[in-house]
Amino acid sequence: MKICRFGENRFGVVTADGVVDVTEVFAALPASGYPFPRHDVMIAALPDLLPKLAKFVEGADVIPLDQIKLDLPVANPGKLVAAPVNYAKHLQEVRDQAELNHANEAHMRQIKDIGLFLKANSSLIGPGKAVEISRPDRRNDHEIELAVVIGKTGKNISAADALDYVAAYTIGLDMTVRGPEDRSFRKSLDTYSVLGPWLVTADEIPDPATLGFELTVNGETRQKAHTSDLVLSVPELIEYASSFYTLHPGDVIFTGTPEGVGQVHAGDTMHAQIDQIGELTVEVTGVA
Amino acid sequence: MKICRFGENRFGVVTADGVVDVTEVFAALPASGYPFPRHDVMIAALPDLLPKLAKFVEGADVIPLDQIKLDLPVANPGKLVAAPVNYAKHLQEVRDQAELNHANEAHMRQIKDIGLFLKANSSLIGPGKAVEISRPDRRNDHEIELAVVIGKTGKNISAADALDYVAAYTIGLDMTVRGPEDRSFRKSLDTYSVLGPWLVTADEIPDPATLGFELTVNGETRQKAHTSDLVLSVPELIEYASSFYTLHPGDVIFTGTPEGVGQVHAGDTMHAQIDQIGELTVEVTGVA
Repeated sequence: MKICRFGENRFGVVTADGVVDVTEVFAALPASGYPFPRHDVMIAALPDLLPKLAKFVEGADVIPLDQIKLDLPVANPGKLVAAPVNYAKHLQEVRDQAELNHANEAHMRQIKDIGLFLKANSSLIGPGKAVEISRPDRRNDHEIELAVVIGKTGKNISAADALDYVAAYTIGLDMTVRGPEDRSFRKSLDTYSVLGPWLVTADEIPDPATLGFELTVNGETRQKAHTSDLVLSVPELIEYASSFYTLHPGDVIFTGTPEGVGQVHAGDTMHAQIDQIGELTVEVTGVA
Repeated sequence: MKICRFGENRFGVVTADGVVDVTEVFAALPASGYPFPRHDVMIAALPDLLPKLAKFVEGADVIPLDQIKLDLPVANPGKLVAAPVNYAKHLQEVRDQAELNHANEAHMRQIKDIGLFLKANSSLIGPGKAVEISRPDRRNDHEIELAVVIGKTGKNISAADALDYVAAYTIGLDMTVRGPEDRSFRKSLDTYSVLGPWLVTADEIPDPATLGFELTVNGETRQKAHTSDLVLSVPELIEYASSFYTLHPGDVIFTGTPEGVGQVHAGDTMHAQIDQIGELTVEVTGVA
């Protein structure tokens, strides 16, 4: 099932004909006083919600997609975990451009030597929002990635069990300012993490290693690859991440970007597409 | 004012005689349905709450401190921002121990070359919880730090205005597993970030550069320093962090640790003290 947020905090199920407004079903999620839950309670409740949503959408009215404004599909994101150089060809590309990475040898080691890194969830935007280039004096790069939304709390999850912990998949853009600083700083600028256009629940993608994907900038193909080429697969990433820390519902794993990473500038239009998920158009602007 | 959380989600004001239960005052904070606010609404509301709290505690009953169990004082933490090598003598110490840092040249550059880094807020614990050493095969280090809790949303904050954005101060422990991986990974293990024992509101500490502090392990002094020796001061850290991303109420800045960083093992007891804030005893254990 494809689940979106749209308009003024409304929830929808995306069908072949358009969007069914299912806000009523989500209204059953419990309210809370302070302090609020620290995980995403909607994502955690998806196994219970899915049959209700399926029933609700039967014969329901449909709003054409072009009449709604989509919003960030993970409303209460937890930690944004990201994998560096997780496609072999991208690793080679990083090696060839060592000067861009300020000769930081660590950038060039294989992923398990580098570890995963974090992006601030304050950097997150959804569809309809623009990536704002706040450091035009630096190189600003696009990185398209399969994004995995965690659905269940888990620690030390084995790769064999890992896909049971996935709630959904979506398209992720891990925007990056080049420079000498720590990755978790340079990749956490406001608007430098994009998720969308919606969540595709895990039951629709039994094997996340089967997805072709592509990013174009102003219509020109920049990145075109396939998740079968991931160095650490989605189950292996979940095993690895959860060997260091607990994963919670609403945590998101950006699985890494393939070769073809390149610059964007204010005025550019990025278009991202991942098989079985959909497509996402993101404008690049200066700072408002 | 010193504000704590204790027991089963109760809030208290710490006085010279003990704790006044002020949960009733915090009950006025508005409830919410999904999605929940993405910042800490209590921290954001502190300017309004403080006069109410001051009035409430007048003549109220006091619970002796030794009769309550304190809890994590920031209940809905945002991003945990941390400063590497922000004391000159600690920088020298890192240089002298290069092998521990796997010769990653980046670790040894001055802070503005390195940038700030993130810790996962899923790693946070409060008073009464133990740091669990989940990688006993590695070196696990203590780092005591002054922790700054942000109270107001801000971007591109000037150092001159920065202290207006501080809600409170508390003691922070930035626990670290040594190894080659990205800092944001190694420093984000469950229980590897500690805050407590309570929040001291910013009005009580007009100048955060005036605080002596000390960490002992099993009664032996390991770190003893003064915030006047910070390389980047609290206002400069806020200016620097907010030049990259927006700060929100409930974000926490770990300001960096001084010389004396050393190992801890299961069975150790850490005792942290910062002038004008208080003290915090934290046990070190294996994984439960």
